[in-house]
Amino acid sequence: MSQEVQQPDVSSYMSGARPEGTENYIMQQTMIRVKDPKASLDFYCHVLGFKLLMYKELPQWKFNVYFVAPVDASTIPSDADSRWAMCMSTPGCLELTWNYGTETSEGMVYNTGNADNTGTMDGQKVKGGFGHIGITVPNVYRACERFKEMGVEFHKSPNSGGMKGLAFIKDPDGYLVEVLPQGVMVTEAVDCLGVPAEGGEGYKDNSK
Amino acid sequence: MSQEVQQPDVSSYMSGARPEGTENYIMQQTMIRVKDPKASLDFYCHVLGFKLLMYKELPQWKFNVYFVAPVDASTIPSDADSRWAMCMSTPGCLELTWNYGTETSEGMVYNTGNADNTGTMDGQKVKGGFGHIGITVPNVYRACERFKEMGVEFHKSPNSGGMKGLAFIKDPDGYLVEVLPQGVMVTEAVDCLGVPAEGGEGYKDNSK
Repeated sequence: MSQEVQQPDVSSYMSGARPEGTENYIMQQTMIRVKDPKASLDFYCHVLGFKLLMYKELPQWKFNVYFVAPVDASTIPSDADSRWAMCMSTPGCLELTWNYGTETSEGMVYNTGNADNTGTMDGQKVKGGFGHIGITVPNVYRACERFKEMGVEFHKSPNSGGMKGLAFIKDPDGYLVEVLPQGVMVTEAVDCLGVPAEGGEGYKDNSK
Repeated sequence: MSQEVQQPDVSSYMSGARPEGTENYIMQQTMIRVKDPKASLDFYCHVLGFKLLMYKELPQWKFNVYFVAPVDASTIPSDADSRWAMCMSTPGCLELTWNYGTETSEGMVYNTGNADNTGTMDGQKVKGGFGHIGITVPNVYRACERFKEMGVEFHKSPNSGGMKGLAFIKDPDGYLVEVLPQGVMVTEAVDCLGVPAEGGEGYKDNSK
């Protein structure tokens, strides 16, 4: 197909005042379901350095929710009401939902959104809408060396694939976590998995 | 089953220093695929008051990405490098990924994660992992009145269901957006859809 794509004009979305009433809206959360809350909290808090801001145990509905974000623990209030308010004002929290009983299931429980066959009746792949969450870090290569030392599973190391200098790791449920630099994109000669910057063609991106 | 759930002890995740090297990590993005970028940008920018911080057109790979977040447009730098850096330091961005061609598809394209049958070969529901994104607002009832006036589809109005004072609306792809208060939870007598606080039992929550 030689047809050119008509690129939409999006300049109007970058300027102007926010609509009246929306000025203080906060993009506060992304909710994902997790099989085992302990495994997920270990990953997000010990590996990614997030803290548990707030949680709710809801045995009457057989599920709990845990809100995590990369904050300084000393800023988390000790009383429940203040903690709730702080959490609701923190942009970019992850809400981990644990439905009781999933933790004893065999294998993966939830479809991760990225063309996997988990959670389907026929074992066919699903065209999922959710792709990944992403963290930004001061140095992607140093961050990934630490992740490797901690035994984290890589979906894409920094030098694999066509996009150099960014990585994808997997959380305990298989959700993808992108690792991006806070400043300019940089490329180092060799990454934590030994992949040279000139190589890495084996990786095929399925997350777009 | 009368079995009690063993609630995990999570207190250790709330305190202590972040692991060395993770102190500056930012939870920067959540990526979802969208069928039609214009429809999604209209929704996130005009309805939710988000702004387009940064975007990339990648015709060589046949997709574009658009980063939106509820920021003041005057803070978005005009040159591309500064815009990238600003975007990568903004927590809670939404990355909208548009794969060329989906915009002309019939009906829904992507599985939203919430027990729908979109994106499967057999039309069966999928046990999705992704649940929703969520915004917090100064007043849920006022926000929802405005959403209703703008023709937004409600999944749950503030007084529907067991949890009063919070709502779920749908974006153009059917993804759920939770609407929560920034302060304490409040309940008003009647919501924008005319549901009284004492009623609303018809709503069955499938998002947990």
